[in-house]
Amino acid sequence: MMKKGNMLYEGKAKKIFETDNPDLIIQEFKDDASAFNALKTGTIVGKGVVNNSVSCKIFSFLEASGIPTHFVEKLSEREMACRKLDIIKVEVVVRNVAAGSLVKRYGFEEGADLEFPIVEYYLKDDALADPLMNESHAMLLNLASAEDFVVLKSQALKINALLVDYFFKRNLKLVDFKLEFGRHHDKIFLGDEISPDTCRLWDVGSGKKLDKDRFRFDLGDIEESYLEVQKRVLAD
Amino acid sequence: MMKKGNMLYEGKAKKIFETDNPDLIIQEFKDDASAFNALKTGTIVGKGVVNNSVSCKIFSFLEASGIPTHFVEKLSEREMACRKLDIIKVEVVVRNVAAGSLVKRYGFEEGADLEFPIVEYYLKDDALADPLMNESHAMLLNLASAEDFVVLKSQALKINALLVDYFFKRNLKLVDFKLEFGRHHDKIFLGDEISPDTCRLWDVGSGKKLDKDRFRFDLGDIEESYLEVQKRVLAD
Repeated sequence: MMKKGNMLYEGKAKKIFETDNPDLIIQEFKDDASAFNALKTGTIVGKGVVNNSVSCKIFSFLEASGIPTHFVEKLSEREMACRKLDIIKVEVVVRNVAAGSLVKRYGFEEGADLEFPIVEYYLKDDALADPLMNESHAMLLNLASAEDFVVLKSQALKINALLVDYFFKRNLKLVDFKLEFGRHHDKIFLGDEISPDTCRLWDVGSGKKLDKDRFRFDLGDIEESYLEVQKRVLAD
Repeated sequence: MMKKGNMLYEGKAKKIFETDNPDLIIQEFKDDASAFNALKTGTIVGKGVVNNSVSCKIFSFLEASGIPTHFVEKLSEREMACRKLDIIKVEVVVRNVAAGSLVKRYGFEEGADLEFPIVEYYLKDDALADPLMNESHAMLLNLASAEDFVVLKSQALKINALLVDYFFKRNLKLVDFKLEFGRHHDKIFLGDEISPDTCRLWDVGSGKKLDKDRFRFDLGDIEESYLEVQKRVLAD
């Protein structure tokens, strides 16, 4: 049993702790919610429990499907043991359906199925409000090499194909989601979390949004929606 | 001698006229200046004359260097005869030195030489304020195909290599510039203009800005700077 050590970092939705094993950290999921680069903040009661259990389930599934992830094991309701990654400061977004910035920025019709899934890169930098960038920007900023991007893109599309199917079987449409990757002993692993905080998930039948958009746009039923996603993801 | 017909389109800096030849149009350069998606507007006296003569000279040079362009001939002080293009609504920006949005958006240091030239794509859409996009966005919007992007990117980098050298011989540093391409009988040609409106050009010795940034940021000497660029480009 690993020993929880000092807090290394506190983010908007998680705390990261060191352990007595230098290769491992503990992710502790909070109920704090934030949106629009932290212009909107609040609490979603029980969110940390949902996001930890959903993430643990999905990371296990991805590992079993051949994706290298940081996931090691679920430790408690809110804690996950993970490989310690040197996070690549590139947020990788995959989209299957038009929503969010695709609608606002380019005029796509909300809900339109995209002809093919697209991958976007955002600079992970709160002070700059996580701007969209291309591979060249990231290379010039020394965040990732051209070879790294081959891995990021192919892993992101592989994960997307796996998750579209995984969620669809649970009556959830995977609209889009955000991934973070990191390095561990010179290999790239999927890190962070996969949860209703980082995915847009719509009920297949009704189209009801069951993700952080309920918090972003004050749509109500926030806690219920997170619990509904948890129920569907954990069922089987 | 072609006959100037009806005006097809009036843009922020140019008017486009049809001619009695359906394959040709006339670009007429105005003195109207605009910046920040037309939030700032004004007049730069003589700009149309400078931009036409600079563009004609540079397009002739590029044609002679093997780049297919829309340029046919200079007709008058403010008029250029061009092949009629079906414009691809993708603004192609090439950057050699950090300035403008590279500084504002990603925190690059202004004036820093980039390790390699980078190519960016912006959606040409005033109502959406010309947002940055990647190739996938443009493909989903049916603006250009993957094959088109191979042409756009390779032509943009070839043009950049030619122009960096061309301007440097005239004591001008080509910081960055914007290109537009279009289709004419199923072939892609370079269109629009290349001028101090569409290029950042700095004096090599002093670093003095000799382009539209003088108008954008009220730096003074606007007309003089445009004339200085004209003088150096036309000399030889």
